[in-house]
Amino acid sequence: ARRRVGRRVAAVNAAAPRRWWCELAWLGGPDATPGVLLEVGDDGALAAVTPGVANPPPGATRLAGLSLPGLVNAHSHAFHRGLRGRTQTGGGTFWTWREQMYGLAGRLDPERYLALAAATYAEMALAGITTVGEFHYLHHDPAGRAYADDAMSEAIVEAAGRAGIRLTLLDTCYLQGGISGPGRELGGVQRRFSDGLVGEWARRVERLREHPTLRVGAAIHSVRAVDPGAIELVAGWAAGRGAPLHAHVSEQPAENEACLAAYGCSPSALLAEHGALDARFTAVHATHLAAGDIGLLGSSGCSVCLCPTTERDLADGIGPAAALRAAGVGLCLGSDSHAVIDLLEEARGVELDERLATGRRGGHDPADLLADATSGGAESLGWSGGGRLAVGAPADFCTLDTSHPRLAGTFGPGGAGAAAAAVFAGAPGAISDVVVAGRAVVAGGEHLALGDVGAALAAAIDDAWRD
Amino acid sequence: ARRRVGRRVAAVNAAAPRRWWCELAWLGGPDATPGVLLEVGDDGALAAVTPGVANPPPGATRLAGLSLPGLVNAHSHAFHRGLRGRTQTGGGTFWTWREQMYGLAGRLDPERYLALAAATYAEMALAGITTVGEFHYLHHDPAGRAYADDAMSEAIVEAAGRAGIRLTLLDTCYLQGGISGPGRELGGVQRRFSDGLVGEWARRVERLREHPTLRVGAAIHSVRAVDPGAIELVAGWAAGRGAPLHAHVSEQPAENEACLAAYGCSPSALLAEHGALDARFTAVHATHLAAGDIGLLGSSGCSVCLCPTTERDLADGIGPAAALRAAGVGLCLGSDSHAVIDLLEEARGVELDERLATGRRGGHDPADLLADATSGGAESLGWSGGGRLAVGAPADFCTLDTSHPRLAGTFGPGGAGAAAAAVFAGAPGAISDVVVAGRAVVAGGEHLALGDVGAALAAAIDDAWRD
Repeated sequence: ARRRVGRRVAAVNAAAPRRWWCELAWLGGPDATPGVLLEVGDDGALAAVTPGVANPPPGATRLAGLSLPGLVNAHSHAFHRGLRGRTQTGGGTFWTWREQMYGLAGRLDPERYLALAAATYAEMALAGITTVGEFHYLHHDPAGRAYADDAMSEAIVEAAGRAGIRLTLLDTCYLQGGISGPGRELGGVQRRFSDGLVGEWARRVERLREHPTLRVGAAIHSVRAVDPGAIELVAGWAAGRGAPLHAHVSEQPAENEACLAAYGCSPSALLAEHGALDARFTAVHATHLAAGDIGLLGSSGCSVCLCPTTERDLADGIGPAAALRAAGVGLCLGSDSHAVIDLLEEARGVELDERLATGRRGGHDPADLLADATSGGAESLGWSGGGRLAVGAPADFCTLDTSHPRLAGTFGPGGAGAAAAAVFAGAPGAISDVVVAGRAVVAGGEHLALGDVGAALAAAIDDAWRD
Repeated sequence: ARRRVGRRVAAVNAAAPRRWWCELAWLGGPDATPGVLLEVGDDGALAAVTPGVANPPPGATRLAGLSLPGLVNAHSHAFHRGLRGRTQTGGGTFWTWREQMYGLAGRLDPERYLALAAATYAEMALAGITTVGEFHYLHHDPAGRAYADDAMSEAIVEAAGRAGIRLTLLDTCYLQGGISGPGRELGGVQRRFSDGLVGEWARRVERLREHPTLRVGAAIHSVRAVDPGAIELVAGWAAGRGAPLHAHVSEQPAENEACLAAYGCSPSALLAEHGALDARFTAVHATHLAAGDIGLLGSSGCSVCLCPTTERDLADGIGPAAALRAAGVGLCLGSDSHAVIDLLEEARGVELDERLATGRRGGHDPADLLADATSGGAESLGWSGGGRLAVGAPADFCTLDTSHPRLAGTFGPGGAGAAAAAVFAGAPGAISDVVVAGRAVVAGGEHLALGDVGAALAAAIDDAWRD
């Protein structure tokens, strides 16, 4: 599957236009810049970014509206897309929702997983997302056995190739159902998440080969699911490879309580003690941090991935985003459970949820929120220097149709205040064009390779739920 | 202007198809019903609603997807649409935002007001909204003089006619800048909001004539802006006409504090004491209720209009929606400041914000949330029995394209669980068709009368901000 994807990328690249002219482009800061020419080299990176070009030069593709660096979705569980709309009736908590999620996880084989992930990633492409970080734990069969050729991981790689987006596969170590007590034993569908031993996890992950739009990273599911010894081994594997390392951290108070009871410290402190926290590390959620955690995360140079739409949907709560930013933590964003797939809603959700918590507006600068959705995610996922319209960065960008009813009239002449408009008024339906590694993936709101994404989603989800 | 609109409606009605066949329609409850035929009488009301019709009969227009009663936007300040995206930079509170809003309010004349409101209402139509309640306080000129022929009110009526949606004009009494102290005197743009004396307000409102898609109601801006004597007179006027009566109630703690200091009670209690609270009354926001207010509102039979996207944007806070519903208060929804225009986001926001506040999921049944967005709004705005696909109700409905990537795969076979899917996965971009009073306003996602709504919005907003 990997080789086929690589060939397809090369073939499309050869025929693709290499220059795009942007009516407006966001190059950082509060405003957009009029008339920006983007030129792409043979390596799929930006070879030139030239502002002040009044009209499209011959041979350049014209992008009307506001072009942004491609949005980066730093935390995805692709198969959760099959739960959208289906877990909203009746009461409960994160933990009852998890039982519903396990119900779907138990039904997926490599074929269903591929179909669902490809359609989900195509929905991401339509929403302007050019890179996804897949926190991939559904890698074993229902009996807990490894698939031949690691078929579930290969399905994720193939899915990103079909959808045309860049992927960091965060292959996830998951070894136990909880820290202690009867929940420690892997139960039911959790057996699918486990390699049994951390060494088996490392051997499986070593097989995966990177290519120009695929990076391999590691994930520690959580301090619930990975013991301190295994945390050290996974962190060491990532350090040796210079690979990104992610972990779910303090999404729920119960995790903090179990960690404190077993280890006498917070999940952040436990991860720090066992070598996980450094500039390649991303703490996902970080909603319920203990005293001292914010300083610890800030001093480590790590990132935090906020997933506001999921944290709101799952009743997790509101994390301390402004305090984390002030402490020097790099922020990035994820659509996680895909209750919605809309990175701009995630970006404004960071600010809007803090408004609810504090009664104050403006905890975050809109340009910072847009950077979280782009360059912040690229740093977290191991595409250093990406998520920017700058020479040398991957040629990944997307365009908002600023004449769309959502966006019309939301910023001033010449692009003044366009960053705030993109964050607070943008929506997937206003994305017209998407380019990944210098090749067009979406044009005029249509997915060029896959066509009817809604039909692909419906077919994959209906099939997943069929007995 | 009124007469012209009336003629246009009649002319279109005569040529419009009178039967629509819905692939799926929501008739209440958790699920949708397959194969529903809607037949419209000459009065613009539903003459028949027939489930179990397997195929579209000859002459019926086929509506693929999920048809809902038209969404009802029970609280709008149309001109605030010109602020979208433009008030998000820098810090502050509700009160600093209000200064920005006043900046726009000061720039509008009847022509600009009409253009902006018509485009805003057209954006509402594209989002499936078939009825709007306009909380209309910008009725005087910059010097505080009445316009000839009440031109600002006429502009709102004309705007709804151009956009093709049903209107309840809630003409708003506003007499003072605050309850006491130096802020009591009307300052700056506030002079535009005032009729000077409550009797002048009543004389102006008496001039407005209703028609089949226009109802006239009253509004008390707030207990800050209307003294108890005037509250009694406005409430009496509404009671005498059987008209809806709305008021902003406890949006901000400062309002409660000022009310308590001056009158020794909460805004809800003050309104009750002066005859405002009954089944025709709607309290808008009700975010910061005092002890006893919930019981008081519940026992009065009134409604509360929640505006979650605005309350989040303005850092107002999270109101006690589940407790209000449990107390028997009728809930409805408004997009208020139009930070977004998406009634389904308002509906899910009610539930999602309470999840953030409580750490629990499922405080509201999805079918109740969908009723809030439809029949609840119709009751609040004086269209009793409306907002339902039922015989005798106004023939107002909209259709969600369930093959849209947002909605694909979000509910089960035969419409099982479709109410939750509509609330939690619906979006304006998925609205394909909208019918108001039995005439098609939107088809295939296009506004039939106005065409390019984005261009109309951009032109109106650019003009409003131009010196």
